[in-house]
Amino acid sequence: MSKKYTIGVDFGTQSGRALLVEVATGREVATAIKEYPHGVMDEYLPDGTTRLDDDWALQHPQDYIDVLKEAIPRVLKESGVDPENVIGVGVDFTACTLIPVGEEGIPLCFHDEYKSNPHAYVKLWKHHAAQDKANKINDIAKKRAEEFLNLYGGKVSSEWLFPKLWQMLDEAPDLYKRAAKFIEAADWVVMQLTGEEKRNSCAAGYKAMWHKHKGYPSNEFFKTLDPRLENVVDQKLSRDIYPIGTKAGELTEEAARLTGLMQGTAVAVGNVDAHVAVPAVGIVEEGKMLMIMGTSTCHIILAKEEKIVPGICGVVEDGVIPGFLGYEAGQSCVGDHFQWFVNNCVPASYYEEAIEKGMNIHDLLSQKAAKLAVGESGLIAIDWWNGNRSVLVDVDLTGLIIGYTLLTKPEEIYRALIEATAYGTRMIIETFEERGVPIKELYAAGGISHKNPFLMQIYSDVTNREIRISASAQTPALGSAMFGAVAAGKERGGYDSIVDAAKEMARLKDVVYRPIPRNVEVYNKLYGEYKLLHDYFARGANDVMKRLKNIKRQVIEE
Amino acid sequence: MSKKYTIGVDFGTQSGRALLVEVATGREVATAIKEYPHGVMDEYLPDGTTRLDDDWALQHPQDYIDVLKEAIPRVLKESGVDPENVIGVGVDFTACTLIPVGEEGIPLCFHDEYKSNPHAYVKLWKHHAAQDKANKINDIAKKRAEEFLNLYGGKVSSEWLFPKLWQMLDEAPDLYKRAAKFIEAADWVVMQLTGEEKRNSCAAGYKAMWHKHKGYPSNEFFKTLDPRLENVVDQKLSRDIYPIGTKAGELTEEAARLTGLMQGTAVAVGNVDAHVAVPAVGIVEEGKMLMIMGTSTCHIILAKEEKIVPGICGVVEDGVIPGFLGYEAGQSCVGDHFQWFVNNCVPASYYEEAIEKGMNIHDLLSQKAAKLAVGESGLIAIDWWNGNRSVLVDVDLTGLIIGYTLLTKPEEIYRALIEATAYGTRMIIETFEERGVPIKELYAAGGISHKNPFLMQIYSDVTNREIRISASAQTPALGSAMFGAVAAGKERGGYDSIVDAAKEMARLKDVVYRPIPRNVEVYNKLYGEYKLLHDYFARGANDVMKRLKNIKRQVIEE
Repeated sequence: MSKKYTIGVDFGTQSGRALLVEVATGREVATAIKEYPHGVMDEYLPDGTTRLDDDWALQHPQDYIDVLKEAIPRVLKESGVDPENVIGVGVDFTACTLIPVGEEGIPLCFHDEYKSNPHAYVKLWKHHAAQDKANKINDIAKKRAEEFLNLYGGKVSSEWLFPKLWQMLDEAPDLYKRAAKFIEAADWVVMQLTGEEKRNSCAAGYKAMWHKHKGYPSNEFFKTLDPRLENVVDQKLSRDIYPIGTKAGELTEEAARLTGLMQGTAVAVGNVDAHVAVPAVGIVEEGKMLMIMGTSTCHIILAKEEKIVPGICGVVEDGVIPGFLGYEAGQSCVGDHFQWFVNNCVPASYYEEAIEKGMNIHDLLSQKAAKLAVGESGLIAIDWWNGNRSVLVDVDLTGLIIGYTLLTKPEEIYRALIEATAYGTRMIIETFEERGVPIKELYAAGGISHKNPFLMQIYSDVTNREIRISASAQTPALGSAMFGAVAAGKERGGYDSIVDAAKEMARLKDVVYRPIPRNVEVYNKLYGEYKLLHDYFARGANDVMKRLKNIKRQVIEE
Repeated sequence: MSKKYTIGVDFGTQSGRALLVEVATGREVATAIKEYPHGVMDEYLPDGTTRLDDDWALQHPQDYIDVLKEAIPRVLKESGVDPENVIGVGVDFTACTLIPVGEEGIPLCFHDEYKSNPHAYVKLWKHHAAQDKANKINDIAKKRAEEFLNLYGGKVSSEWLFPKLWQMLDEAPDLYKRAAKFIEAADWVVMQLTGEEKRNSCAAGYKAMWHKHKGYPSNEFFKTLDPRLENVVDQKLSRDIYPIGTKAGELTEEAARLTGLMQGTAVAVGNVDAHVAVPAVGIVEEGKMLMIMGTSTCHIILAKEEKIVPGICGVVEDGVIPGFLGYEAGQSCVGDHFQWFVNNCVPASYYEEAIEKGMNIHDLLSQKAAKLAVGESGLIAIDWWNGNRSVLVDVDLTGLIIGYTLLTKPEEIYRALIEATAYGTRMIIETFEERGVPIKELYAAGGISHKNPFLMQIYSDVTNREIRISASAQTPALGSAMFGAVAAGKERGGYDSIVDAAKEMARLKDVVYRPIPRNVEVYNKLYGEYKLLHDYFARGANDVMKRLKNIKRQVIEE
């Protein structure tokens, strides 16, 4: 029998990636990336004239089709694999990345008449302009003592489904009426492949307040938010939620033409990009936390019991691996942090040196920063350039650097920013443990974990834990491919469960980062300072960050 | 009668400058700069082999003679003014810039035998290697409840006379014995011109703890510091202090040969470079604060009463203008702050843009920053990159920036740094006013005040006060020239008092910066936030800055 393959398609913030994987071993055979032609729209719409307000972040769904159309054929071509032997496809996506669609699932922005209406586009996960809606949801849910709130760390994020949907209802009510449905981009892509609307339990659970046993919050609750929302679930969403690890359907003829795959290929129910990575590093048990490190970091931990942990993003039964509660936490600003720094704060001489040495600017900065002893910079940063998700759930917090002198060098600031994100991770770990969710070992996936050993050692030293690294450079895509193989099932050459798939297909690097005792000792002191500042600025003693944001808003409005 | 002229000679950190001025109008006729051949010696002595420790900063007194010998003849030649018509000479200097001299006032470093002894040279104002001596003076003065301490904001600086002198006694006791006297460079230069030792009240008051009515601290106090210091004032200094605004003497035959001026030309008692600028902008009354803005800023205010103001640099009767108490305060890091930023934090694209537009990088950043509304950046900085002089007197404080987001741009940070120094100035003003020293208007001199109107408008808005700018690009030299005319007196074509001289000779630019009410309103809010952070980090609530500095020291030592 010829070898079987499966394809994972991972839709990120800037691009989509297809990965073709050998089912039996998890060996990655070919990969292809398609940058989104429209990228992230945060200043103007594609018409070039419609300006977006601060905190907006949109995408264009045509870009997702482009990924299917270009990246899948490219992996087939590159690998030389016969589409006959590709048994499954899995898809993962950023979330909540929300598409308003008309009849037949056609995105509203595909219609010429709505091209200049920002609300017709995809609201990307990091669209933060619905904060006031999130605040109202939180206030009212709190007043009503809605049970669901506890499962989301006490706060619903503006990044989630209902705030985004409600923002549109409020700001563009006519267009809202015109929207037949709102759908997660992951599920929309699955719909393009299979012709079927199969909403996934992972996104519904983590981003739309859906509970395996209790369903969505009550219509009564939605009515209290806004009378027009009373029947929002039935009118604009759906109560049919499909568990991850199941099959959504099979490739339509049209989708087969688009992708070059065979009609009838099994397609898995969609997934969220972070969560799908967990089985890809082989985590199918408790006590192990995966950090998916990219522009932001997402932390996922499995456990057997449902505990109330403040500031987590969510805890969802069967949300990650069937049979476990999957806890999610998050840091809003990790890679973005370092990229902001190199874009805005690094002098020309450093770029010249990097070019001379044939190095990436991040590598040069890391190399210089690695020469510093722990604590030598005298700097501490607080990693809130993009607000804070866990454990504070507060988008209005902002970044801080303390300890500057006239001798402070760029590499010292760069190191302080790295350390700040590591302190943020430690804060998350400690909060879980305090609430009875133990975390013994760390796993990391995502670009940063591969590219920056210096950073990973800092994380190990700051958290005083061993860290193992995903062998795949495209862990979510590998996870999606695994779910594709599960969708196909054992009979068609795949697997019957994700646990089985993980046993054969998950892969780790040989390197293990281990804490260095001398560094741990100094970082314990520095983390103490971080924590003091963290609590002072975020827990009500001095709300200067929020007041500055308010002043900013006021002067911009004038 | 032919027009009369006067010459001011301003001795700075890197060079000396002569300015020839018309007595009747203050018109600047000619100027000449002489760079010090030895510059600032902070690594090696002129022998090229004797290495200096960190924090040392020396000069060579031959350089001062070179200024007299070259710069004065050059202004005479350039202007074509007959030396007969030059009626006076005034001199100002950095301070405390201290020369150990042997018999007849010959600097010890002029003797071949001491050429390789660092202590034989001039200790420049910014020689910081006597910090431990300053600490001891402060400790002991505090324990003894010495009254003088209150007049210096509660702390003596390592830059002043006694720490420098004591360092020599401790580290080079034989050479100390050999030194007949220690003398301020200003007074030494006056001695070269007149043959007379006439120590000036400004340097003695601000830098040597001398008080018009109480004299120096008691011998008992000096004995407590070190028994060898018991009679230091009588042995190594002098109790004859001459008020500024008086005549030191007349040009000797030798000095006339050196400078090309006429023997018998009146020479004023020496002065300090910042303080001498006050009458040059026309300040001869209360309520007006002069800011001399350079790498750091020096603030001088006149008042009628001696008040205790925390954190000032000093208050000296007749120290600036006879008949007034002259208060001095300071900010340690102003121009240095912006220079650090452009050296370390500005991306290549900004430099490229500046080159394309033929602009200085500071001008480009200011131009971009000027487009922002007050409060739009959402940032607040605390201006302690080089510690804080007034009003906290704490070198272990460090800089802070709060409010970063992923959209923060370099020009926003640059603006925040400018604003931070303006908040620091407002803090000084408010502290003075709280203690009964009113400040109604501001005056500015120094490079920044001429080069950066954007910055000056921010200062006006933040302080809610009008700001007038010195018309002279060499305000201290103009002030010294005015004192030269006063030394000559009215009978010889000059003036009988500095007040009279200021009426005719002081010059201001036409521009007046006036607070813009809308900006003032927002800055009031932002300043409130600055103050809150200022007090939190500097007044004991959270000493994180000091703890970080301690951790840094420890890890560097290991």
